Amino acid sequence: MIYMDSAASTPVDPRVLDEMMPYMSGRFGNPSSAHRMGREASRAVEAARRQVAELINARPSEIIFTSGGTESDNTALRSARGPIVTSQVEHEAVLSACRRLESEGARVDYLPVDGAGRVDLDALREAAPGASLVSIMLANNEVGTVQPMAQISRICREAGAALHTDAVQAVGRMPVDVEELGVDMLSLSGHKINGPKGCGALYAREGARVLPLLEGGGQEGGLRSGTENVPAVVGLGAACKICREEMDGRAARCSSLAGRMSARILELPHSQLNGDPSSRVPGNMHFSFPGVEGEDLVVKLDEYGVAASTGSACSINRQSESHVLLAMGLGRDAVAGSLRLTPGAQTSDGDADEAADAVKRAVCELRRVSPLRAKYGFSGA
Amino acid sequence: MIYMDSAASTPVDPRVLDEMMPYMSGRFGNPSSAHRMGREASRAVEAARRQVAELINARPSEIIFTSGGTESDNTALRSARGPIVTSQVEHEAVLSACRRLESEGARVDYLPVDGAGRVDLDALREAAPGASLVSIMLANNEVGTVQPMAQISRICREAGAALHTDAVQAVGRMPVDVEELGVDMLSLSGHKINGPKGCGALYAREGARVLPLLEGGGQEGGLRSGTENVPAVVGLGAACKICREEMDGRAARCSSLAGRMSARILELPHSQLNGDPSSRVPGNMHFSFPGVEGEDLVVKLDEYGVAASTGSACSINRQSESHVLLAMGLGRDAVAGSLRLTPGAQTSDGDADEAADAVKRAVCELRRVSPLRAKYGFSGA
Repeated sequence: MIYMDSAASTPVDPRVLDEMMPYMSGRFGNPSSAHRMGREASRAVEAARRQVAELINARPSEIIFTSGGTESDNTALRSARGPIVTSQVEHEAVLSACRRLESEGARVDYLPVDGAGRVDLDALREAAPGASLVSIMLANNEVGTVQPMAQISRICREAGAALHTDAVQAVGRMPVDVEELGVDMLSLSGHKINGPKGCGALYAREGARVLPLLEGGGQEGGLRSGTENVPAVVGLGAACKICREEMDGRAARCSSLAGRMSARILELPHSQLNGDPSSRVPGNMHFSFPGVEGEDLVVKLDEYGVAASTGSACSINRQSESHVLLAMGLGRDAVAGSLRLTPGAQTSDGDADEAADAVKRAVCELRRVSPLRAKYGFSGA
Repeated sequence: MIYMDSAASTPVDPRVLDEMMPYMSGRFGNPSSAHRMGREASRAVEAARRQVAELINARPSEIIFTSGGTESDNTALRSARGPIVTSQVEHEAVLSACRRLESEGARVDYLPVDGAGRVDLDALREAAPGASLVSIMLANNEVGTVQPMAQISRICREAGAALHTDAVQAVGRMPVDVEELGVDMLSLSGHKINGPKGCGALYAREGARVLPLLEGGGQEGGLRSGTENVPAVVGLGAACKICREEMDGRAARCSSLAGRMSARILELPHSQLNGDPSSRVPGNMHFSFPGVEGEDLVVKLDEYGVAASTGSACSINRQSESHVLLAMGLGRDAVAGSLRLTPGAQTSDGDADEAADAVKRAVCELRRVSPLRAKYGFSGA
């Protein structure tokens, strides 16, 4: 299997696993226990907190460990105490939380985006004053577009609105510095960066308003109760440390792979790369192949030994149409025939070429039996 | 270190770890992905769901995977749509959720308990009619008292109230059958039963009202969003399978260890076993040694190489006084001088004896310098 779905999930790095293992069996104490096994676990959690903080230039005290990106997003959004501004291309974890808040009476503005998936800054300038919280993702999980966060944060600061960013797809893949970005809250996830599943973090700038979503024993400074998932937290810390050391090389490698594959794939007639061609998370490719159904393409590629996705993997109830592509104004056929390819730094040139060729072959085969054959002038089966 | 804190956390069983490992690296797919790595992950989650269901005699469709006991408890409680009845001896995860609901206008009744920690059933009979949800824990995390759940559920059924039970300390340590118990919801946790941290489940009987606490991609039938923590879920399933096969032997072993240790420890003058002597989770011992501060005792035992606890490990802000012991009506000195010992099935007789002797030695030493020396007639230093 050639894995082209790193945006959906990644394997745990063997070095990360090595760090986690001792906390599975030997050092299994509960960090809240007063005895030495508890203190040992607690120290491990604090060391991991420093590692996560370092990757994003935060203070350790500003890191809250959670069960993952969804919990981080939900916590951030539900901490708002008034009108919310977000975008039409957010992850479902943000959009669902917004809909829930709307049902409870909150006002939510969903900002439009342009054809490349970039948030309309004029619309933000208009909406931000009076907002309690603005939530705009850093890198889009489908098309990879990176938002101009520094500009966004300037607008929010002037408007007096707090700013949260879902950076689940960005952290570990590109430099993320909470000071440079000027965000008040930021969500990140372990399993997107060769760390463990079931573990993420919410960065919350000192003084930012955070309401706990999970309540109980008062762990994480009272902001996230529940016994700390020590092995996973240690793993998230280790993954962040590795990202800090190796991200530049990995990002360059992923960009080069994406360039190589895109060039090959875009030789196909009636094909396009979606998203922002320049401001893009390294390694993300998102195509439209009109005349093809994305789901069929994923199935065909699976037969060819290539793991890919139509867009987000994070939604169980796959919509036939991506809310992201619709918001970008893509035509019906382009929305239907979408494919996301996200190689990892470990992907070889050979695998990249093979996957690109498989995509071309699959698209051609599907087009041969496409009901849109005549419309686009594809040759028949 | 002799580990006498199994109620706080347990090591991952090597067999559980063996099951988990493939899903860390090789089989790391996102269950929501349509390709074969996604389907493989999804199948693993469903197999684990069957294993968890089997342990408690539920249907797989009634199991919702969560990040642990706290999330399960919070989800159950926040699903209530009206007055709540709970007890004064619940875990903080239930009590905190109740306080939050109270602050939002809900009515919550906190039932009293008797000296052994048993819920007052007459008070329940009075309070249940009109309640939307009753939440009573199955086994207390401090004193180990097992509540008469079948009687409780009969009262709730007659009153038309739904019943949730926090069974985090009971599942895997004693037989738990949701049909026999007659509960509508039940919380369980992985790391208390030699499964992984960061993973638990909420059983919700078909038709039970559950509001999702985490929202987003719609995983777990829309009731718990967020990428499934596949390795941990697989581990929880494996742990449940092992419990099903080995629980009887383990429970007998834990009870025998507790009997052996209690007999030895209760030779100490002015010492008592708290909780219900007969209806008790196997392996739980909870003592009071007036004239001693529990925290000092834990520190001293730690020096002697014994890991123990004053009561709950689940609260970071350790209260000086346990709400459980206060509700049971214990005197001030008995509350202050409390110690919980929870050996595991793997504890050897030799370690059990050594730990019991260490407790006796530590209590005697601390009493020698106790300010209550004269009151109790302890001999001085």
